[in-house]
Amino acid sequence: MVARRLSLLDTNFLQLESARQPMHVAGLMIFELPANNKLEFVGELVQCFRGCKVFHNPWNYRLQSASRMQFMPLLQEVHDIDMEYHVRHLALPRPGGERELGQMIARLHSQPLDLRRPMWEVHIIEGLENDRFAIYLKIHHCLVDGVSATKILMRALATEPDALGQLPFWAVSDDSSKGIPRAQLKAERKKSSLPTAADVLAISRTLAYTWFGKSDGEEVTLRSAPRSIINDRIHTQRRFATHAEPLDRIKAIAKGADASLNDIVLALTGTVLREYLENHNALPEEGLTASIPVSLHDPNAKEIKNNIGMIFATTGTHIADDRRRLEVIKASTNKAKARLQALPSGTQSLYSNIMLLPYVGSLITGMAGRAKPAFNVVVSNVPGPKEPRYLFGARLTNLYPVSIPMHGGALNVTCFSHAGILNFGLTACRDSLPQMQQMAVSLGRAVDRYEELYCGKVTPIRSASGTH
Amino acid sequence: MVARRLSLLDTNFLQLESARQPMHVAGLMIFELPANNKLEFVGELVQCFRGCKVFHNPWNYRLQSASRMQFMPLLQEVHDIDMEYHVRHLALPRPGGERELGQMIARLHSQPLDLRRPMWEVHIIEGLENDRFAIYLKIHHCLVDGVSATKILMRALATEPDALGQLPFWAVSDDSSKGIPRAQLKAERKKSSLPTAADVLAISRTLAYTWFGKSDGEEVTLRSAPRSIINDRIHTQRRFATHAEPLDRIKAIAKGADASLNDIVLALTGTVLREYLENHNALPEEGLTASIPVSLHDPNAKEIKNNIGMIFATTGTHIADDRRRLEVIKASTNKAKARLQALPSGTQSLYSNIMLLPYVGSLITGMAGRAKPAFNVVVSNVPGPKEPRYLFGARLTNLYPVSIPMHGGALNVTCFSHAGILNFGLTACRDSLPQMQQMAVSLGRAVDRYEELYCGKVTPIRSASGTH
Repeated sequence: MVARRLSLLDTNFLQLESARQPMHVAGLMIFELPANNKLEFVGELVQCFRGCKVFHNPWNYRLQSASRMQFMPLLQEVHDIDMEYHVRHLALPRPGGERELGQMIARLHSQPLDLRRPMWEVHIIEGLENDRFAIYLKIHHCLVDGVSATKILMRALATEPDALGQLPFWAVSDDSSKGIPRAQLKAERKKSSLPTAADVLAISRTLAYTWFGKSDGEEVTLRSAPRSIINDRIHTQRRFATHAEPLDRIKAIAKGADASLNDIVLALTGTVLREYLENHNALPEEGLTASIPVSLHDPNAKEIKNNIGMIFATTGTHIADDRRRLEVIKASTNKAKARLQALPSGTQSLYSNIMLLPYVGSLITGMAGRAKPAFNVVVSNVPGPKEPRYLFGARLTNLYPVSIPMHGGALNVTCFSHAGILNFGLTACRDSLPQMQQMAVSLGRAVDRYEELYCGKVTPIRSASGTH
Repeated sequence: MVARRLSLLDTNFLQLESARQPMHVAGLMIFELPANNKLEFVGELVQCFRGCKVFHNPWNYRLQSASRMQFMPLLQEVHDIDMEYHVRHLALPRPGGERELGQMIARLHSQPLDLRRPMWEVHIIEGLENDRFAIYLKIHHCLVDGVSATKILMRALATEPDALGQLPFWAVSDDSSKGIPRAQLKAERKKSSLPTAADVLAISRTLAYTWFGKSDGEEVTLRSAPRSIINDRIHTQRRFATHAEPLDRIKAIAKGADASLNDIVLALTGTVLREYLENHNALPEEGLTASIPVSLHDPNAKEIKNNIGMIFATTGTHIADDRRRLEVIKASTNKAKARLQALPSGTQSLYSNIMLLPYVGSLITGMAGRAKPAFNVVVSNVPGPKEPRYLFGARLTNLYPVSIPMHGGALNVTCFSHAGILNFGLTACRDSLPQMQQMAVSLGRAVDRYEELYCGKVTPIRSASGTH
């Protein structure tokens, strides 16, 4: 019997699981049907997927005890997996547009995974208009984070349309640690062990500022976030909206504004939130703040490990002018990044983990959504591969992340870029955010306005955005 | 603000609700698309249903507090119902056969209702093969029982294909108590008040026999049921299988065997269970027992109220011979009915309610599925209207009941007869009963064998049954 123990962080993701706050993440992948086999393709794909019973980590593990109330949960390898249960064949009703797809994904994402089984489901959805199909792949956050989920999906897709011998997601082994010498692995492990007192001392001033500091309007702290309707307790049902943009458009705006891609994503999010909250007579006077994972990777270094830090910045929802909003956001993220980079080398990631402890504590104790929020919205941008990907010859056109609303944070905005497209996935609690399709529509309009402001282009008509 | 209180019995149905044991019932209705509007019919139906916001009892009530842990729950009238949430448009994947439909219904029935909203959902499903569509209508058992659920569905369907001005299920008012004089209503209420000591005394000998008596092999008691794999604790996921038979075939068998229709349903259930349990090396030596609701209505009396009693009988799973199995079942149900009818007039229904108290207690205390079962399987037969029914010109061909597996009772067999068809709905816990499609197939074969035995007809080939 092979077993492995969940890490402390992953155990948190399991402990936070409840009917109201299920802790799974998902990817909604849209594919073009291959020209030569449109009618039978999806049925054959379902058969092929169901028939392949070779499993690698993490697909072949289930909890030894299905309870979330355990201190150090054990995962146990299973060999008999009910493929009809885990691989599901669905169809969209007519006309099979973004609206029908969004509604289906919202319903699927509302349903918790069965913790008694391997914690993943693959839904293969036919009937999308314009000769497309979708795969909604759902997996528990205690098994993967955003970056590793992306890896899991991407490693199973081919880079060539005529690739042969493709395997389902679960039959591709995780070889990311292959080829690394044992000594290096050991050194890595040493580096990532528990923090020393010296480490904590080194970052304590920044910690104190983040926890207790007063915001200067631009640089924000965990005390800056105003109360808002998106920071209540959440309930079981979800909404989901999508929007896709050519990456070149967003990059051109970023260049014109001398901002980062993440700044533009943040400005778009702030613009959309401002419009939405104004429409619902619920716009706070202070700017909503965002929690943003950022890469701390030094482009000149040759590190192999991930180096992710967390910063907080304003979304500029208190500013009516589009240009001024982006400028304040730029200043806000620049100050936050500077403060993070001023930390002793190697402690940034540690700082981010410790800094989030009060927030994790509020989730575990049930205070989240009742007290003043630590931040208002999570805005995340996960980069994917630049070149196109294929599944048995079907081209992946979009991959929308479907993420986790939590108590005190009813909205999650996650982007994924791939093959020249930036895909926005907006996941929300259905009760907290009614009429969320407005956000997807307003996202498209915001891109148009920023393009006009910074690139001088005028886009007269937009195609409809994906709505839940 | 209009509010009403749940009755004690209905409160039980709410208190038993859990993720593993959701307490909703459903009807799966299959319709033929009208010849003149096949392509647009389902989309138009969804629009029409979503647009009709006139609600009658019980569609417009939600729990004042969504907790199941309350002693006397209040229902509260609501006026703003999220129709996109409650009325859902779905589609079956190709080929849209019984297999795909059964899988979809199994998944839908596994999902609990959101107790924070009015406790019903209507799923309109397109893409069934042979120009058909389906409606899966789900409602909490604390709002309706089997008989009233049938009424709710039937009163909203027309008796003529060209009926005009049809309304959705929720917009048809409950006029079942209309036209009854107040005095009579008052008298009825008096009759159905709490039992007197004299009533309990009158039925106490029969109660003692049912609770503590030793079975004679034919007449069974709450001590007769053997342990079996279908009487474990259940889990969250469901399986669903269907089978339909011309009512005339079953009636001919009943006539040939000098048995009741219910006896034939019971014999078919026993035959199917015997085959299934033998295949899984899990056939108990003693016969499995069934709990069966029976009508106590005297055909000569002019009562208007329902008069339902509960009997227990063997399903004959311990008997290999088909004819002998039916004979023992006949003897078993006849003895049970005789004992029920020997009770003082008017106390049969009371007896049935009191008699079930230990079983309800085992469910509430969590003993059900751990101790020896009180009975092995629920077998219910709800009669519907004889004439065909229509929805905007679409003919109802089948109505399969989808019922409630419980801890200690992982299988429910409920039949519904309508317009010459007897529809079997077999609802089960997915974990307890693998490969349940075997039951649907074996049900058809059992009808063939009994027809051959009692009517002398030989049916060489059968059409496939509906499987989960």
